[in-house]
Amino acid sequence: MGTIKVIIAGPRGRMGKEAVKMVQATEHFQLVAVLDRKYDGQLLSEIEGFQGVDVPVYIDIDQCFSEKQADVLIDLTTPETGYVHTKKALENNIRPVVGTTGFTDEQLKELTALAEEKEIGCIIAPNFAIGAILMMKFSEMAAKYFQDVEIIELHHDQKLDAPSGTALKTTQMMSQVREAKKQGHPEEKETISGARGANIDGMHVHSVRLPGLIAHQQVIFGADGQTLTIRHDSYNRASFMSGVKVCVETVMNVKTLIYGMEHIID
Amino acid sequence: MGTIKVIIAGPRGRMGKEAVKMVQATEHFQLVAVLDRKYDGQLLSEIEGFQGVDVPVYIDIDQCFSEKQADVLIDLTTPETGYVHTKKALENNIRPVVGTTGFTDEQLKELTALAEEKEIGCIIAPNFAIGAILMMKFSEMAAKYFQDVEIIELHHDQKLDAPSGTALKTTQMMSQVREAKKQGHPEEKETISGARGANIDGMHVHSVRLPGLIAHQQVIFGADGQTLTIRHDSYNRASFMSGVKVCVETVMNVKTLIYGMEHIID
Amino acid sequence: MGTIKVIIAGPRGRMGKEAVKMVQATEHFQLVAVLDRKYDGQLLSEIEGFQGVDVPVYIDIDQCFSEKQADVLIDLTTPETGYVHTKKALENNIRPVVGTTGFTDEQLKELTALAEEKEIGCIIAPNFAIGAILMMKFSEMAAKYFQDVEIIELHHDQKLDAPSGTALKTTQMMSQVREAKKQGHPEEKETISGARGANIDGMHVHSVRLPGLIAHQQVIFGADGQTLTIRHDSYNRASFMSGVKVCVETVMNVKTLIYGMEHIID
Amino acid sequence: MGTIKVIIAGPRGRMGKEAVKMVQATEHFQLVAVLDRKYDGQLLSEIEGFQGVDVPVYIDIDQCFSEKQADVLIDLTTPETGYVHTKKALENNIRPVVGTTGFTDEQLKELTALAEEKEIGCIIAPNFAIGAILMMKFSEMAAKYFQDVEIIELHHDQKLDAPSGTALKTTQMMSQVREAKKQGHPEEKETISGARGANIDGMHVHSVRLPGLIAHQQVIFGADGQTLTIRHDSYNRASFMSGVKVCVETVMNVKTLIYGMEHIID
Repeated sequence: MGTIKVIIAGPRGRMGKEAVKMVQATEHFQLVAVLDRKYDGQLLSEIEGFQGVDVPVYIDIDQCFSEKQADVLIDLTTPETGYVHTKKALENNIRPVVGTTGFTDEQLKELTALAEEKEIGCIIAPNFAIGAILMMKFSEMAAKYFQDVEIIELHHDQKLDAPSGTALKTTQMMSQVREAKKQGHPEEKETISGARGANIDGMHVHSVRLPGLIAHQQVIFGADGQTLTIRHDSYNRASFMSGVKVCVETVMNVKTLIYGMEHIID
Repeated sequence: MGTIKVIIAGPRGRMGKEAVKMVQATEHFQLVAVLDRKYDGQLLSEIEGFQGVDVPVYIDIDQCFSEKQADVLIDLTTPETGYVHTKKALENNIRPVVGTTGFTDEQLKELTALAEEKEIGCIIAPNFAIGAILMMKFSEMAAKYFQDVEIIELHHDQKLDAPSGTALKTTQMMSQVREAKKQGHPEEKETISGARGANIDGMHVHSVRLPGLIAHQQVIFGADGQTLTIRHDSYNRASFMSGVKVCVETVMNVKTLIYGMEHIID
Repeated sequence: MGTIKVIIAGPRGRMGKEAVKMVQATEHFQLVAVLDRKYDGQLLSEIEGFQGVDVPVYIDIDQCFSEKQADVLIDLTTPETGYVHTKKALENNIRPVVGTTGFTDEQLKELTALAEEKEIGCIIAPNFAIGAILMMKFSEMAAKYFQDVEIIELHHDQKLDAPSGTALKTTQMMSQVREAKKQGHPEEKETISGARGANIDGMHVHSVRLPGLIAHQQVIFGADGQTLTIRHDSYNRASFMSGVKVCVETVMNVKTLIYGMEHIID
Repeated sequence: MGTIKVIIAGPRGRMGKEAVKMVQATEHFQLVAVLDRKYDGQLLSEIEGFQGVDVPVYIDIDQCFSEKQADVLIDLTTPETGYVHTKKALENNIRPVVGTTGFTDEQLKELTALAEEKEIGCIIAPNFAIGAILMMKFSEMAAKYFQDVEIIELHHDQKLDAPSGTALKTTQMMSQVREAKKQGHPEEKETISGARGANIDGMHVHSVRLPGLIAHQQVIFGADGQTLTIRHDSYNRASFMSGVKVCVETVMNVKTLIYGMEHIID
């Protein structure tokens, strides 16, 4: 695999900072420029926190693309800016990897058509945590063979909603393939209300909230004489970066727009 | 430690069978007789499932005690029979280890006085699973230092009640030492009812029921930057025997009646 | 899905007994006969342990097939008998599900050709534990995205070999897709030999042996800021039966011989 | 419990910063001053990262003690400075809680005598992570009842030594009470060297190293039919602060020097 030349838009955001680190740490990736709202014409290395990263900062995307040759644009900005960037990148035969979730259906249709016309890849992902994506994918696969499943999701005690969005998404994915079943003993009784958790299509979901915890989920499947457990532990924001890395590599080898990382995992 | 001579009452019950195996397998224990409702005068080895265990079977406890010298009586019968056996054993200076739970307060008082008078030990335990006892004991100890705690108990899907008795007992023990606290974010919301489990004095308990599972419980304590987890997995009835073994050894060294294994663990 | 008529060969073996139970417990399966070395002409219900299972026992497979119409033969006998049974079943347009592992390459070739000629399915599986198969399959999939992986396998302390066969098979499957990597810090040091486990192609495998444990394995993948864990717990022989059930359903819908359950899971 | 007035020495170190936060966040603690090598006469709030913490900074401990009344000194400096601080604090009837490990035996003796003479408490702790202390304490207690035990410790892959110091300390504590035993099957064989881990007095220790992990340890006890698992997960430095808090509260109620937090947990 040759070196992949990368431009990052939004390098000073929390995700952007991690992306700069990841690209720098990956041997066959090369950071050639960054797009920012400020610091035009400076070197990134002049900005605090980016010591040694000697690539130019651009505000104007057209100027950036005309002066710097690149294979991939990693966009970690806002939906509005991201949409403009994605379109311009495709028009310039640069493959976009976009981490924003807020594109409209119309925008997605337009970008899909543009990617097809240009015959280059484009990946738009609401969630880059590859471990979480695999957990959901594996849960969906296992649910075909095990009807009985419960989810325990564990988060820090500052989280407001229960169950978590990831738990809900996991049950949705399993529901599509799982033979419906009311789990547990038909006559089971809660002597204290709530003990058996939230019931979603017969699957029970339990939300643990404790200081110290970060973001964890385990999906437990049971059948006669055995259990199968799939667990994801997310400790910090860096967890998203292995997903971005996979996207950068994958976008080089596809010729269409892909929405959601679950579709590039096989 | 010298050899401890043991009589087992109720050798053909499910617990009794395991007790016979345990005594045979323990080097410094010696089985000298068994008490049963049947098979008087036979050898235990003549009964199916006890091949090679050449000890006499007695129906009459007085005859048994007069013919056989013993240090400890392990009683795994019923509350009615167990009470009679325990009293007779104490009167004969044989130390009882009793696995029945149904003694009345009056009976317990009487037996306590008798043990004191005779100056010998007597242990009566509703639960012999030493791992479960330790889990509860450790949870109680940890609750002094960690206010935030949740319990996940997991059982086979034929169990009718939720939460389990062990989970309830654990919260009771922790409540006695734990500074009261309503856990979780003050404004947390269940978008689906039951997600946050059963709330017992501010502690949340979650009951998982799946085929394949047997009997498991984990107690999770959380504080800034760390969690402490205590977990017990019970796979089968043999799990009670290490507790019986500890009781047999302990009963030789105490001079009072002890109710509940949690009081002999230090 | 209509009712699937099933014949079981080897009903009195440990696997066979569980298979009889599973077929009886599955609504859309119907047990029509069993093949045995003994008890010809009797009803299975006359044999101890099979109360209420009123199906005829045959010694002669030809007679069985001529008198009883069936869709699937579940064979849980020996490699020698299994081979004969499989061949006869295919010739009679009955789809075999075979749990023996000892077929020669030549026999497999012959049976593959026969299945193709008859245009009916045939499944031969060394391991029916669907949870274990899924664990290995998921590990293989995850190893494409996470280079860093360690295995902890836990078994009862009567097991002689370490690492377990399942752990070895899992590393083999991962090796085929995993980018080679020497894991851990380049300068890491074992202050006590063995601490870092067995090193297989740079992946570390740890074998825990304790009384109480049965058969468990967890595969842990790590990347910046996250871990993904896949765990299988096998508690008893019944765990194989959900796999047999899947095979019986699958064999009705395929037209070739399939070797290994990992190939029917998608 | 009345308000406890606290002075912190070393507020700008990594531990010190967390200590300032903890004292501020604890209702019945009141920070009255800090000791530092710089910034004499300023307010702590004038230093970056301590916004709103309006307490005076002192370089000179004598001046500090003469101008500010305090109950407890939390010292998170170096062994050299810490020794001087501890001695001065005791002489001024201020109770020290010290997080340095490097005191000599002679120094400890001297300080112990001084605390006794003054009849006030003094706590010196090499490790303030209360969860880790409890894990070790519980392991020691459980080892009396379960001879069979294995440790799995899991750390990030930048750690150089295996097994970890905490794992070694845990085995030492268990060895003191555990009946010696060579675990596993007498004829067990490693088909790949290292599979069974490091053998310490017959106990096996397994070291997992993966990116993503932080600092985790689980101690698994096994007996017939059951396992008991004690697990500590440390996610960040804040995990030490609940231990410091316990020490500040405890030091008010004792009249001797205590070395090691395991001695204040009951």
